[in-house]
Formats: sequence, C-alpha cells, structure tokens
Amino acid sequence: MKKFIDTPETLLHDSLSGFALAHGDIVRYNPEPRFIRRAQIGPAGKVALISGGGSGHEPLHCGYVGVGMLDAACPGQIFTSPTPDQMLAAAQAVDTGGGILFIVKNYAGDVMNFDMAAELLEVPHGSVLVHDDVSIPEHQGMGRRGVAGTLMVEKIVGAAAEAGADLAACLALGERVVHATASMGVALTSCTVPALGKPTFEIAGDEMEMGVGIHGERGRERMKLATAKEIVDQIATTIADELKPERNQSALLHINGFGATPLLELYLIYHLAAQFFQDRGVVIARSLVGNHTTSLDMAGCSVTLTLLDDELIRWWDAPVHTASLRWAC
Amino acid sequence: MKKFIDTPETLLHDSLSGFALAHGDIVRYNPEPRFIRRAQIGPAGKVALISGGGSGHEPLHCGYVGVGMLDAACPGQIFTSPTPDQMLAAAQAVDTGGGILFIVKNYAGDVMNFDMAAELLEVPHGSVLVHDDVSIPEHQGMGRRGVAGTLMVEKIVGAAAEAGADLAACLALGERVVHATASMGVALTSCTVPALGKPTFEIAGDEMEMGVGIHGERGRERMKLATAKEIVDQIATTIADELKPERNQSALLHINGFGATPLLELYLIYHLAAQFFQDRGVVIARSLVGNHTTSLDMAGCSVTLTLLDDELIRWWDAPVHTASLRWAC
Repeated sequence: MKKFIDTPETLLHDSLSGFALAHGDIVRYNPEPRFIRRAQIGPAGKVALISGGGSGHEPLHCGYVGVGMLDAACPGQIFTSPTPDQMLAAAQAVDTGGGILFIVKNYAGDVMNFDMAAELLEVPHGSVLVHDDVSIPEHQGMGRRGVAGTLMVEKIVGAAAEAGADLAACLALGERVVHATASMGVALTSCTVPALGKPTFEIAGDEMEMGVGIHGERGRERMKLATAKEIVDQIATTIADELKPERNQSALLHINGFGATPLLELYLIYHLAAQFFQDRGVVIARSLVGNHTTSLDMAGCSVTLTLLDDELIRWWDAPVHTASLRWAC
Repeated sequence: MKKFIDTPETLLHDSLSGFALAHGDIVRYNPEPRFIRRAQIGPAGKVALISGGGSGHEPLHCGYVGVGMLDAACPGQIFTSPTPDQMLAAAQAVDTGGGILFIVKNYAGDVMNFDMAAELLEVPHGSVLVHDDVSIPEHQGMGRRGVAGTLMVEKIVGAAAEAGADLAACLALGERVVHATASMGVALTSCTVPALGKPTFEIAGDEMEMGVGIHGERGRERMKLATAKEIVDQIATTIADELKPERNQSALLHINGFGATPLLELYLIYHLAAQFFQDRGVVIARSLVGNHTTSLDMAGCSVTLTLLDDELIRWWDAPVHTASLRWAC
C-alpha cells in the first residue's frame, strides 16, 4: 500500500484536524463525537442541514460545510457509517430552532444510524434519502445507492435553507432534486482502504467495472476496457432512459472523478456526455467537472444529470462558501 | 494503460473543447494555434498575463485563466512545450495596450519558446521565470524547475495586473513572489503519458521518489517509503533551509496533490507541514490544499511555502474567477 500515512488509526483525526486548520474561516472540528460544523452557526430559525457517511469520499461531505450548503457533516471511519451520537451532537451544535434536515445516502448502515438519531431528536426534523445510482435496478436489495448526485441535493437545498425556506419546503425540495437526478459510474482500477492495505477488488489490466459504486461495489457488468465514447454512450443512455428528458429540458451535467483520474480525461468525458445529451435536445445549462465524490484512489468517474427548472437553477447559482465549492459570495 | 481515451492524438483537443464548453462564462478556446483565453478580454491598458507549458498538469494553466489571474494560457501536448506561434497568437488575442507578461516555468523547451515569442512580440513585454523546486541545487544544469509555486505567481501578479499595475510593477512583483517561494515534491507512483502508454519511470512497491519533478523527473533520492511525518520533515526542512523564515513571518502553505492522492492524505500532509512551520515560528496566514499542479495520474504531493507580507496577502485575497480558483467575486 503506497499512501501518505502515519498510522491508519490516526489518519482520519489528523486529516480532519488539518482540514479544520486549513479552513478555519469556514469550519470547526469537533473530535468527540466527530463532526465538522460551520464556523458561524446559522441565524435563528434557519433549517440546519446535516449530512455524513463513511470517509474516503472527500471532499464530500466535510468540504461542503459552509454558508449556502451544509451546517454540519458527520464523517465515519473510511467507508464506515457514522454513528447516531455523532449526528445528535452535530444537530445539537447547529440547531437554531428551524429544525434539522438529514441528507442521507442510501446505504444500510447510514440509513439505520440516521434513523436512530432522528428518533432521538427532540426538535422538528426530516430526512432526504439520496438514491441516484441508476446502474442497478430500483427494487434490488436496499435499492439504489446514493452517489455523486448527493452534492446537488446539498447545494440546492442548502441554498433554499439559507434563504429561509422552512423544514417542509426543504424536505420537498430535496425530494424533488432526488427525483430529477440520475448518476452512473465506471471504475478502471480499485481503491485501497488504508486499514486493509490491499485493493478492495481485483480487476485485470484490460477490464473496467461498469456501474461501480463509490466504495468499489460491483456494478452491472465487468467489461473489457472500451473507448471513452463507448463508455459515455452506455452510461448516458442509461441515465437518459431513466430521466427521460424532453427536448429543450435544461439540465446540470456533473462529471465526477473518483480520485485518480486526471482532469484532462474528465473534461474529455464531459465533452462526450454534453454532446450526447445535446444531441437529444437537452440544454446543458450548468456544469460541474472535478473530484467531488471520490472513492479514495480509484481511477474512474461518474456522470450525473440533474434536470433543472428556473427555481433549481436559482438555488444552484446562489452564493456558496465552503472549502470545496465556492462562488458568488 | 487504463485511461478514458478515444485516441491519444485527439485527447488534448477534445479535452480542451470540453473545458471551454463547461466554462463558457469564463474562457474561450482557440484550437489553431492552440490557446485558452478569457471570455471577456481585459480593459484597455491592462497588462496581459500569459502562461503555458506542457499539458498533463491540469488545472494548471488553463484552469487559472479568468478575472484576477491569467489572460491566456498556451497548452502544449502532454509534457511537451507549447510553440512560439501559440504564444504570439494568444498575445495578439489578449493585448489591450498594457504590454504582455509571460509567466514561464523553468524548463529548456518552455524557456526557449517563450524567449522566441518574446523576440517576435512588437509590444512591450517581460517574462517572469519560475524556479521554485528546491529539491535540486540551484546551479545544476538548467537550474531549478518551475513547479507548484507557479500558481502563487499567477494569482498574486494576476491580482495586481487586474488592479492596474503596469508592466514594470508586475514584473517586479513576479520576481518578488518567485524569490519568496520554495517547493518540493515526492512521488509514490509514476505517471503514464497516454501517447507512450507505459509508466514514465519504474518504482518498487516499497519505494518513493523524493524531490520528484512534475513530469516524473528523478529527484534527489530514491528512498524506502517513510511515514508521512518523516516525509514532511525532510521536505519542510529543505524548504525552511532555503527560505530561512524569521519568527512571526507570515506565509502561505500550499499542499499540492499530483493527481492520484486522496484529499484525506493531502490534509494529513497539510497538518504535519503546518505544525512543522508553526513550531519554527512561522504564521500560516493563508492555505491552499488540493490538486492544482498535477502530473497526470501520479500519486504524490508537493509542499510549497510562500513568505507573505501585507501586500502579497492583499493580492492573494483579491477576487479571482477562474475554472479552478474562485473567490470573492
């Protein structure tokens, strides 16, 4: 295993300490129980948005804590769900009377622990479940996984909460973004969890994992490595079949790198995906290209499409000031 | 070779086309001769900043074209210098009468071609040569390489140019930033140039390349893999010996990922480096952590320290609106 590391046991704490030190104007780090919160708690009555999940997907979620997005994030150990005490402590720290909204990626552990925290919360609360990964069927096992589309939910609902939307409105908006969003990924290599020290899965030099999850979960098909165009065609077709955009439908196109794929390649994928959707009459109104929902050091990427209307565009464009997404502030 | 690619010959053009499409509010792409320029040319009399170099270091330089940084960037093929006709065409496109400032990383081909372009320029011009890589001796061969510190020059001089500083002032400021900046990197893996299809260098599973260049050039020593703390101690000591910061000296600390190293590890490195310099009395006044000057898919990182005074802090904090650095606009 080739990583910058002292001991696997201290990696997460030391890394979060560095994160909080580097972004002291934006966040604070509470080590025990572990959460990252905004440096300045939101105004009285603002709905507080809290997300979280296993670490290893940075900048998700801690990199999206700040004005216009999350109020707090609860990082678990790498690829391990955070615990209810983290969520409760985070909620207590950022609650200003407007209620708590959990944004939860659809994984058994995350769902169970956020549910448990919700049951213990003594203030108004709700949960948005993100399940944007259309590579697997909707009614298989736990259902679809929450992947890179989570960022769209956090940004759009975050903007509305900042503008004073109440809990019911934030919840409804979150559901609307989830419904309008579809993602699918492909891996060229595995990732390596530091505490395990070896690749999560084996993959041959001429193979790719189509429909991979963000923890290296098997996807829909192990295939021979194809050209970028063939890969994008397969992914974008799956997304288009799911969302069925009409002609002149506006959309946000997000190409997300899993960690080890250069920007040069991500922009190639963006170009191909934009052409694919434009050829079907979709108007790519907004774009985001980069490493946002990663899988440690995995080479690969995902494509996310969110169908937009004027309201969603307004929330997407609204000011945001976080460590990893920052504009118009 | 596992990459998203159709053909190596079209990768750069297709990727830049995607880049320009994704950031149409910020940049324009001129394919022949190849350069990226601001969507809105600067006001009359503004000094125009142009950088460039081999591709494969994205987001450097194209990701830093925009208000508050570069006016244009000239990307060569991967790890290959751009040619004088690119620089001349870019200069012609962005010149508004204030003169042209080239920001050049110290590599033989880059220096030769920017020099040739400068000789052909018929407007006032100057060049800042960046040579911040302190891993190799100053007077060896071509001298020190220009690496991740280039971004500091582009940001700080870019802010001054935007505020109306003239050519002589921009040139002097650029020299001052170069003098105040030192960088050193370490590689855990090689990178793979698409047209070659195999790793640039071989490195064993338990080795690292200390002092590596951003094209995978050999550094100062091939060593056994060390802990993050040992690595940071060696790099930060070299930088401190070079810059000799006094107690209470303000500085910008930049941890740059080479492409395949997760943010989790980069923030660990940041934490260790910040502690190292703080222990020596340095005040870490500003921070930047992320993949900014990459080496394709290389795992590794570099540490850059720029000594700051009030003026440099003011320029660093000034508004910037580019694809990959954006704040306060």
